[in-house]
Amino acid sequence: MSIFDLHTLLPAWIGDFLHHEASCFPDVTARMAFVIRLTSRNVAEGSGGPFGAAVFERDSGVLVAVGVNAVVASHCSHAHAEMVALALAQQRLETHDLASPGLPTHELVTSCEPCAMCLGAIPWSGVKRVVCGARDADARAIGFDEGSKPAHWQQTLTARGIEVLTDVLRDDAVTVLKHYLATGGMLYNACTDKEHDP
Amino acid sequence: MSIFDLHTLLPAWIGDFLHHEASCFPDVTARMAFVIRLTSRNVAEGSGGPFGAAVFERDSGVLVAVGVNAVVASHCSHAHAEMVALALAQQRLETHDLASPGLPTHELVTSCEPCAMCLGAIPWSGVKRVVCGARDADARAIGFDEGSKPAHWQQTLTARGIEVLTDVLRDDAVTVLKHYLATGGMLYNACTDKEHDP
Repeated sequence: MSIFDLHTLLPAWIGDFLHHEASCFPDVTARMAFVIRLTSRNVAEGSGGPFGAAVFERDSGVLVAVGVNAVVASHCSHAHAEMVALALAQQRLETHDLASPGLPTHELVTSCEPCAMCLGAIPWSGVKRVVCGARDADARAIGFDEGSKPAHWQQTLTARGIEVLTDVLRDDAVTVLKHYLATGGMLYNACTDKEHDP
Repeated sequence: MSIFDLHTLLPAWIGDFLHHEASCFPDVTARMAFVIRLTSRNVAEGSGGPFGAAVFERDSGVLVAVGVNAVVASHCSHAHAEMVALALAQQRLETHDLASPGLPTHELVTSCEPCAMCLGAIPWSGVKRVVCGARDADARAIGFDEGSKPAHWQQTLTARGIEVLTDVLRDDAVTVLKHYLATGGMLYNACTDKEHDP
């Protein structure tokens, strides 16, 4: 075994995309609009699934890191947008805990409510707010599997002191999901189209 | 933002460790014993939490990839042993889906039952069997947070055609957990020791 490092590369267009965007966004609507533009670009470029996310400083709105779905391109089933954004934020701040002493409070803004994996990852990341666009039911409606989430998944976060905001620009986020489906986007989940798909 | 790549590096001793091990293990007991040796080394070296994992070809026992907990060292809260092993197996095989056509059936062997994040990640990975040593209650007993898992978490896997074996060399796996605690190992979860810890 010669490869011991795991790396997920964001698509090459990210640099150009960020060059034309602000570096600070005043409120959750502006932050979600940014994430939806990011997601829409990921679909237009054909670089991954119709999901985008970003980590911001919650109070200032400063952008810390972005993520797009890169499962197929990066050969990594963990590479959901939320996972990429959280990992890059942690790498940038050189800590596994975005709630480390001395850091500003961080939030995750995601174009769609998290799947079971990303939901489980959020409490470990140190973010204190999660802002969602489309609902998980919207992702399921176009064929994506969201996994086995606890029935009251939002409460599993709020019980840990993580605020959850939902339906922020939901219609715009759903439009991107539907556009992905209409243009023949790949439904890549490992359990999809397999004999054991429930 | 200048860093767009996410990488989690396994500790430097992994090469030496693998050099002294076999490359194929005949049954689940031998595979778990290997994973527990890996975990024990991670504790002895002080390179991460007391968790190890590996991906094998289920029928032949060929070792495909290993993972150890590297959360603190890699500045990545996703870097649980299971996540690292799955990601490295996918990278090695150049696919996001370990159940891709033409590949042998793969399994994940982990020193401890998965946390909520790793549980959510397993169906996306393509493995068809999960073999566990210690129980999640054993990890909680020494202070680790396993997250909000569905009440019948094993059934969420079996319903997707993923076999689950538990308590394989559990006592040996628990011994490593207790040794970590006794030697002052860090409990690194972001929600631990915080005001909102449930």
